[in-house]
Amino acid sequence: MKRRSFLTGAGTGLGAAALAAPAMAQGSSESRLAEVEWQLASSYPRSLDTIYGAIEMIAARVAEVTEGRFRIQPSPPNAVVPAMQVLDAVGSGAVPCGQTAAYFYIDKDPTFCFDTGMPFGLNTRQQAAWMTHGGGLELMRDFYRGHNVTMLPAGNTGAQMGGWFRKEIRTVEDLKGIRMRIGGLAGQILATLGVQPVQMGGGDIRPALELGAIDAAEFVGPYDDERLGLHRVAKYYYYPGWWEGAAQIPLFVNLDAWAALPRPFQAALEQACAEAQSWMLAKYDALNAAALRRLVAAGVVLKPFPREVMDACYEAAFALYDDIAAGNPRFKRVYDAWSSFRDEEYLWFRVAEASFDSFVYGAAARRKA
Amino acid sequence: MKRRSFLTGAGTGLGAAALAAPAMAQGSSESRLAEVEWQLASSYPRSLDTIYGAIEMIAARVAEVTEGRFRIQPSPPNAVVPAMQVLDAVGSGAVPCGQTAAYFYIDKDPTFCFDTGMPFGLNTRQQAAWMTHGGGLELMRDFYRGHNVTMLPAGNTGAQMGGWFRKEIRTVEDLKGIRMRIGGLAGQILATLGVQPVQMGGGDIRPALELGAIDAAEFVGPYDDERLGLHRVAKYYYYPGWWEGAAQIPLFVNLDAWAALPRPFQAALEQACAEAQSWMLAKYDALNAAALRRLVAAGVVLKPFPREVMDACYEAAFALYDDIAAGNPRFKRVYDAWSSFRDEEYLWFRVAEASFDSFVYGAAARRKA
Repeated sequence: MKRRSFLTGAGTGLGAAALAAPAMAQGSSESRLAEVEWQLASSYPRSLDTIYGAIEMIAARVAEVTEGRFRIQPSPPNAVVPAMQVLDAVGSGAVPCGQTAAYFYIDKDPTFCFDTGMPFGLNTRQQAAWMTHGGGLELMRDFYRGHNVTMLPAGNTGAQMGGWFRKEIRTVEDLKGIRMRIGGLAGQILATLGVQPVQMGGGDIRPALELGAIDAAEFVGPYDDERLGLHRVAKYYYYPGWWEGAAQIPLFVNLDAWAALPRPFQAALEQACAEAQSWMLAKYDALNAAALRRLVAAGVVLKPFPREVMDACYEAAFALYDDIAAGNPRFKRVYDAWSSFRDEEYLWFRVAEASFDSFVYGAAARRKA
Repeated sequence: MKRRSFLTGAGTGLGAAALAAPAMAQGSSESRLAEVEWQLASSYPRSLDTIYGAIEMIAARVAEVTEGRFRIQPSPPNAVVPAMQVLDAVGSGAVPCGQTAAYFYIDKDPTFCFDTGMPFGLNTRQQAAWMTHGGGLELMRDFYRGHNVTMLPAGNTGAQMGGWFRKEIRTVEDLKGIRMRIGGLAGQILATLGVQPVQMGGGDIRPALELGAIDAAEFVGPYDDERLGLHRVAKYYYYPGWWEGAAQIPLFVNLDAWAALPRPFQAALEQACAEAQSWMLAKYDALNAAALRRLVAAGVVLKPFPREVMDACYEAAFALYDDIAAGNPRFKRVYDAWSSFRDEEYLWFRVAEASFDSFVYGAAARRKA
C-alpha cells in the first residue's frame, strides 16, 4: 500500500513518517502544513439516511474542526467499492477508510460478529460500555490487526425488529422450511431450526416477498423498513430482533493510513465518530417511534416471537458459540471476556434501568387508559 | 460582560467580532491566529471521577484537536465558583463555561428540570433522542437564553438508585416523617407524601446518616455511593431512582463567549461534549455493575420500592407538573412538547428494546441456574 496516496497537497516536503508523529509534540506548525483527503467507502446506500447520514456528518465535522485541512469524501456502494468488499478494500489500502457492518465478514471469521453485536448479546448501552470501558475495543482492535485495519465505533441502530413474515409463527415447528432473508450468525442459528437463510440486498426484499421467492425478511426497524414498503407485502411484524439487540456500525481505517494521520486529525476523526454514533442512535430512537405508529395504523400485525421460539433460538445460539469457541482461539478469547462482562452488565441493568423503564411504561399506559 | 476577557494571546489584532464569524468562510488563515483560554467551573468535586473526568476529557480533546490553541481549564467547586452558583457565574460572564446539573436551579424556574430529566420521565436514550432529534435542545436553549447561557449535553449518569434507607419502606405510610437527603422536584414530590427533604453536600451524607440527623439519602448509583461508604451506615438500598431515570450533565456556556468563539473551536467543543457524554454513560454502565456486586457481597439489602409507593409518587409527580404548568408558561411550553415525545418513545421502546432486554436477562439467569 502506498501511504502517500492518502496525503495530498500543502505539506509537500513531509513524508508519511513525519506526519505520523504526534503533531503537538513536534510543535504545531508542522502539522498545520498537512492536508489530507480520504475516500470513505460505505456498504450502505444514501437512502438509509440514518446510517449514511452519519458518515456525511463525520465528513462535515472533521472538515469543520480542522478548518478544511482534513477532507473526507463518503461514497455509496459501487461508486468506489462494492458493498460487501469494504473491509477488504480498507485492509488492502484501496481506500483509507470505510463504513460497513462487521458481521458481513463472518465467513472470514465469526469473531467479527462481536463488533456488530452477538445474537442474544448486549444491548446498545452495554455494547458501548464494553467497547470503551470493558476492554472490548482493545480486544477487537487486536483481532483487526490481522486484517490490517483499526476500528472506531461510529454508529448503532439500537435493537432491531424481528422482521416481516407472510404467515404467523406460533411454534418452533412453524419455522421449518421458511425461506427468510437473514444473514450473519442469526442465519446459522435459524438454520439449525429448519429456516433456509437467503442473502439479498435491501432493495430486492420487497419484490422477493411479493413474488413468494422468500417467506420472511428482516431488515432494520420501523423507520427503514417502512421506506422499503415491506408492510405492503407481509402482514406480520415480529419483535424483538434477538440477533441485533444492538447493531454497531464501525468505521474501519487502514492501519497504515491511521499511522500516517497527524494526531490532531486522528483526534478529530475519533470525536466525529463518537458524536456520529450518538447521533445515529438518537435519530433511530426518535424516528422509529412515529414510523411504528404509522405501520400499525396501516394494518400491520405487531407480534412478539412466541416464548418457545425465543427459547429454542437462545439455546441454539449458545450451542453455536460454544462450538465455534472450541475450534477458533480468536473467537474464544473475545467470547470469554465478553461473557464475563455481559453477566455483570445484566445484573446491574436489571436493577435501576429495567425497573425504571418497566414501571414508567406501565404507569403511563394506565394513566392514558 | 467583557468578551475579550475570554480571548488571549496570539491573534493580537483581532477583535471579538472577527473571531465570532465562521472561520472557514473567512479563510482559515485568520482563525489559525486565534488562541482562546477558558475556565470551566464545575459543581462536582474531583472525587466523582466519572463526572469530573468528563470535563478533563473535554479539555484534553479540545486541546488535541485544535493543536493547543483552545485551552480549557477545569476547576472543582470553590476554586473559582461555589458549587451551586455555576449557572449564575456562567450567565454573568464571570466564567465562560461550567459543568453543573440544571435541576440545582429549579428554585429559579422548575423548567430547568427538563434538562436533567424529569422524575418518571425519559430514560437516558430517550432523553438523548429528545435533545438531538426531538426538539428538546431547541426548546431548552430557547429557555436558557433568558439566563444568558447556551447548553451542550455533556454527560449522563444513566438511571440512578433510589438511595439508602436505615429502615425498610413497606407502605406509603412508612414515608411519613422520614428525613431524606434529596433535592429537586423529587423532594417536592416526596414532601407531598410526608417526607422531609433535606439539602446537603455529598460529603456530609455519611455522617448525617450515621448520627441519625437524616433517615435516608439518595446520591447517585453503586459506583459513587460505594466510595462515600453509605453502605456502612444504612442497610437498605432501594431502586429505581424514579426521579432520575436519566440525569443529563450539561455544559453551560455564556452566550457572548459562545458567539465570540471561532466556529472551528465551537465545533471542537460540541464534538468533545458529545464524546464525553457517551464516555461518562459508558463508564457508569461498566463500573456500576461491579460496584453493585461488591455492595451486595458486603451485606447491603437491595430492594425495589413497593409498588404502592411507586404509584403514589407517580401520581404526586404528575399532579405537581400539572400545577406548575398551569402557572408557568415556560414550563408548560416544554412540558407539552416533552409529553408528546415521551408518549411516542414509550410505545416504541416497549417493543424491540424492552422485549429484548427482558428476555435476555431472564434467559441468562436461567441458563446459569
